[in-house]
Amino acid sequence: MTPSATPAYRRLSVEERRSQLLDAALGLFAHRAPEDVSLDDVAEAAGVSRPLVYRYFPGGKQQLYEAALHSAAEELRHCFDEPREGPPLSRLSRALDRYLAFVDGHDTGFSALLQGGSVVETSRTTAIVDQVRRSAAEHIHQHLGVTAPGPWLRMTVRVWITSVEAASLMWLDEDKRPPAAELRDWLVEEFVAALTVTAGRDPQTAGLLGALAGDDRH
Amino acid sequence: MTPSATPAYRRLSVEERRSQLLDAALGLFAHRAPEDVSLDDVAEAAGVSRPLVYRYFPGGKQQLYEAALHSAAEELRHCFDEPREGPPLSRLSRALDRYLAFVDGHDTGFSALLQGGSVVETSRTTAIVDQVRRSAAEHIHQHLGVTAPGPWLRMTVRVWITSVEAASLMWLDEDKRPPAAELRDWLVEEFVAALTVTAGRDPQTAGLLGALAGDDRH
Repeated sequence: MTPSATPAYRRLSVEERRSQLLDAALGLFAHRAPEDVSLDDVAEAAGVSRPLVYRYFPGGKQQLYEAALHSAAEELRHCFDEPREGPPLSRLSRALDRYLAFVDGHDTGFSALLQGGSVVETSRTTAIVDQVRRSAAEHIHQHLGVTAPGPWLRMTVRVWITSVEAASLMWLDEDKRPPAAELRDWLVEEFVAALTVTAGRDPQTAGLLGALAGDDRH
Repeated sequence: MTPSATPAYRRLSVEERRSQLLDAALGLFAHRAPEDVSLDDVAEAAGVSRPLVYRYFPGGKQQLYEAALHSAAEELRHCFDEPREGPPLSRLSRALDRYLAFVDGHDTGFSALLQGGSVVETSRTTAIVDQVRRSAAEHIHQHLGVTAPGPWLRMTVRVWITSVEAASLMWLDEDKRPPAAELRDWLVEEFVAALTVTAGRDPQTAGLLGALAGDDRH
């Protein structure tokens, strides 16, 4: 084992190597269904040997997939980071722009994950996705200035988040038509319309709507 | 092997026995997560031996689960059977009443199926659920009198169907509150609101909305 025989294996620290393998996996899982990604593919994309991949991820593909998913979930949560400044609907538009850019950049992986039916074990991956959904709902409540959302408001927000996911999947199915900006505007308008219906039976939501209405969006 | 020793095994025809086992399985899968139902439970509920269950369902629990799911999907599709008479929104209300009664009667199984993360293999179960969704969308297009729905209308209808599912899951999570009739009215109003937003950018949907507006619902 001369250092010169395996220079690439030694140049990186453990953390750096792990992160490099993860990046390679993420790149593959983003554009292929999990069942179409092999450990050999990951090794090749990272320019390392298959045993090295196993050394860092002894759980094999399932472990790599989950690690990649955690990393993608983190990235997705960053999409929701939006300063609490300016009109709330403009903030929502910007967050949706980042979200749709994420969907665009992880198309096949996004579909495979949300449509289920993949070869990977689903209970843990579902839990990761659910955490992202919860995080999105909390962000929305915060931006609406609500600390204790009642059942109707929670229902409306969660259902709209599901709508965003469903619309994103259809958007991918339709070769990313309409343009992301049109889809984003439609989703924002659908959110306001959904809140308006709920406002008819829920005073809390009705109160928020008044504030949103004063919002000069464009 | 005297006939009197196993009278129950002989009284039913093959079809009747199969149907009896399926009913027992459906009853169990409706109110428990699939991982909490064993073949012994099915045998006990049907009052037969475990080997007999295996004789009819050699694929074991997975086969029984899928058979029960097919049967439930059929039942669900019947919820959408609604004569094309009277105001379209009244028809939608009646179909939703039947749908919510189904959700009510299959609560735990419905959640387990749609929330994934079950022990059963998911690709085929997902396909069954997707067929029900497609069938629901087709029914809606037909009731709206549309033979060639464009992308915006399809998106709006599919996204609303996803909303109905998400709202149903939350409704189960919230101990079936609000009352089903309130949830149904909210869902119908959300549908009209969603179409109204789409109508702002899609002439086909705008045309339908005119017809719906003339609909005296109550």
